[in-house]
Amino acid sequence: MLEELKKRVYEANMQLPKHGLVTFTWGNVSEIDRESGLFAIKPSGVDYDKLTPDDMVIVDLNGNKVEGKYNPSSDTATHVELYKAFKDIGGIVHTHSPWATSWAQAGRGIPCYGTTHADYMYGTIPCVRNLTKEEIDEAYEKNTGVLIVDYFKDKDYVAMPAVLCKNHGPFTWGKDGMEAVHNAVVLEEVAKMAARTEKINSEVKEAPQELQDKHYYRKHGANAYYGQK
Amino acid sequence: MLEELKKRVYEANMQLPKHGLVTFTWGNVSEIDRESGLFAIKPSGVDYDKLTPDDMVIVDLNGNKVEGKYNPSSDTATHVELYKAFKDIGGIVHTHSPWATSWAQAGRGIPCYGTTHADYMYGTIPCVRNLTKEEIDEAYEKNTGVLIVDYFKDKDYVAMPAVLCKNHGPFTWGKDGMEAVHNAVVLEEVAKMAARTEKINSEVKEAPQELQDKHYYRKHGANAYYGQK
Amino acid sequence: MLEELKKRVYEANMQLPKHGLVTFTWGNVSEIDRESGLFAIKPSGVDYDKLTPDDMVIVDLNGNKVEGKYNPSSDTATHVELYKAFKDIGGIVHTHSPWATSWAQAGRGIPCYGTTHADYMYGTIPCVRNLTKEEIDEAYEKNTGVLIVDYFKDKDYVAMPAVLCKNHGPFTWGKDGMEAVHNAVVLEEVAKMAARTEKINSEVKEAPQELQDKHYYRKHGANAYYGQK
Amino acid sequence: MLEELKKRVYEANMQLPKHGLVTFTWGNVSEIDRESGLFAIKPSGVDYDKLTPDDMVIVDLNGNKVEGKYNPSSDTATHVELYKAFKDIGGIVHTHSPWATSWAQAGRGIPCYGTTHADYMYGTIPCVRNLTKEEIDEAYEKNTGVLIVDYFKDKDYVAMPAVLCKNHGPFTWGKDGMEAVHNAVVLEEVAKMAARTEKINSEVKEAPQELQDKHYYRKHGANAYYGQK
Repeated sequence: MLEELKKRVYEANMQLPKHGLVTFTWGNVSEIDRESGLFAIKPSGVDYDKLTPDDMVIVDLNGNKVEGKYNPSSDTATHVELYKAFKDIGGIVHTHSPWATSWAQAGRGIPCYGTTHADYMYGTIPCVRNLTKEEIDEAYEKNTGVLIVDYFKDKDYVAMPAVLCKNHGPFTWGKDGMEAVHNAVVLEEVAKMAARTEKINSEVKEAPQELQDKHYYRKHGANAYYGQK
Repeated sequence: MLEELKKRVYEANMQLPKHGLVTFTWGNVSEIDRESGLFAIKPSGVDYDKLTPDDMVIVDLNGNKVEGKYNPSSDTATHVELYKAFKDIGGIVHTHSPWATSWAQAGRGIPCYGTTHADYMYGTIPCVRNLTKEEIDEAYEKNTGVLIVDYFKDKDYVAMPAVLCKNHGPFTWGKDGMEAVHNAVVLEEVAKMAARTEKINSEVKEAPQELQDKHYYRKHGANAYYGQK
Repeated sequence: MLEELKKRVYEANMQLPKHGLVTFTWGNVSEIDRESGLFAIKPSGVDYDKLTPDDMVIVDLNGNKVEGKYNPSSDTATHVELYKAFKDIGGIVHTHSPWATSWAQAGRGIPCYGTTHADYMYGTIPCVRNLTKEEIDEAYEKNTGVLIVDYFKDKDYVAMPAVLCKNHGPFTWGKDGMEAVHNAVVLEEVAKMAARTEKINSEVKEAPQELQDKHYYRKHGANAYYGQK
Repeated sequence: MLEELKKRVYEANMQLPKHGLVTFTWGNVSEIDRESGLFAIKPSGVDYDKLTPDDMVIVDLNGNKVEGKYNPSSDTATHVELYKAFKDIGGIVHTHSPWATSWAQAGRGIPCYGTTHADYMYGTIPCVRNLTKEEIDEAYEKNTGVLIVDYFKDKDYVAMPAVLCKNHGPFTWGKDGMEAVHNAVVLEEVAKMAARTEKINSEVKEAPQELQDKHYYRKHGANAYYGQK
């Protein structure tokens, strides 16, 4: 069932250790088949070097397991909320990648200090608030998703495919699992450089808006001319 | 004698260089066979790439070598004290891993800034005081163990499987050698992110207690639901 | 056409990921054949591990593609301006290497704090200003080159083969593509050490002029005696 | 001639890139045969991956090349001074390893913040002053050695096998080339942790003297008991 999807999700998951984004099992990638409304996701707490495509778990948009020998990622309920609200995305990644997580722990969004950031993400990468005790007790993972969706209700989640959850870590997304991984790598690199930038110049300002616009729209939208499109 | 134990301890030791926790010979893992009261430990000052399972040294809980062609780790007396006092642990690790050691050198415990920390260790990772000159002169390695045990006498060493020794470095433990190594890796990652977190936000506060509780108890205790348990 | 040049440019490009200077496709190397006035450059947005010598694009000094199945790097117009103005260079590199980019994002030139810097680059590595909105709108990549050339109009671009573009990243150059890569590696190492130097001593001063002179002229010019010349 | 020595020096040199201490050709190891008064040293500016044992250059204590197809390291005259004054050493290393070099650029000695440092080096790792313009003009490399020797004239160079040259980088030494490399690795690790320690606690003090003594004499001198001695 959805063999091709499981293979793709497996391969996207294996990119996380390759890019140095995960220690042990601290990360997961999912990808959705919009036609069937089912997504494949990494099983919970299984080592990357023991993973096979067949270990991926198929889940529906109610968060119920449809197929798979393992439990799905403990973050599955967060993925469900994002897929339900963000109709234009096809893949989601969660990691504890060290630089992005350090910003999340610091409770700060990541200002746009340069074109590396602007090439992929438009504006400040947001850091959403802590859940309340009530929200945690009621449904921690689901409410993490609800909070992210609420933050983006009047914003463009395609132009900002990343969020930091305070004291926790990042989620990224994209048109498929591999693009979500790509954005997770970009986020980590941008988070690293932003932290260093502030150490080199404690008075630093964000990149001029016109430079951010130039780089973002050089790669995205109708007038993009980067790459081989 | 205890061939299986020596093999396990050898393999756990070899995880230290693999995870980047040791330079040269600066680390050791032991694991105890509670039935016989004997533990296997890395020999002192032998290179990791020359180590074999047969080089592991068998020591009793009086700190006497029972078998082995080499001297045991110079930290053996510390391991003895921990095994005697912490009845529920089966493995111990000591390293000079750079981030954890930097906190130890700074003389600070590591605050819990996020869920990566809370997933494995409950509360601030403690940094115990320096030994006095008298304690050093009397029995340095033994008294290092005595000091750690004393610190934990009214605390839960299972919920906090790590300690920093001021101006020295970390010890971690777990149900066996491999879990102690796992905790050493977590400690290093958490130490790195905590240092960066404070640089990104010098006013940062610890993660809310309810978030720490949620993550710790999601993975530990009767109501755990992370992984494939 | 220019098969040898394309092979050289391919090999120089492959040095960028090898030295850890690029993530994904964030970098490019070109090299010019001064006789024909044509240069070879990496195609835009093509993965390094799929690149072949034959994928290199041949461009003339008007910025027009002369040969190649792909679009040339989106930074091609910057390379054109540098080749036209800096007659003594044969190769150019652009990257988003993290330490150099952090200085660029911070909007600061890199002071010469030691001999590693002075061995290759004479004086402060400059950081040029942001382009204005008008300059960006008119011709972003071309005007990036024009700005760099203007900065160097009364300076020695051979003795300072590197520049940082504010909120963007570095360009380096050299007598050929491989030397430009060499300078990109030096720049990244120097940028890293300069940032750390300022953290270790916030009152640090630049290296004495006589030491900078000694090291630079030990390696460059008529009296050089470093290496096997 | 001295084939065994050249092989040893070659192998010690190859440890520098293996331990991440050098970029390009920025480092060199020598080892002396005290009987003949000749030492072997890396040639100047030759790539590590092209080096062979036969490329090592034999030099006498007047700094004259005795054998070899290449020029010896440009730092040869520094090595000569150290070998002449420090009768008990057999090997010398110079690198631009990034953390040690950052301390040198900052013009600060490295305080002893912990046992990793105290295990190998007794007290603060010194940073010697800049040479004057006259000393540079007269004989830069020789006077670098003279300055180091002068600093140690009333100190124990065996207990402190490392020095930082201001705005330049480190030299280390040992009983042979391999031990000098070992000390270069220790220095880099200690330099890294000391910088981080000060960032984690800006009020940090050096490790207590009794702890420094314990660790140094646990490994060195008549009462040492670390390792398999």
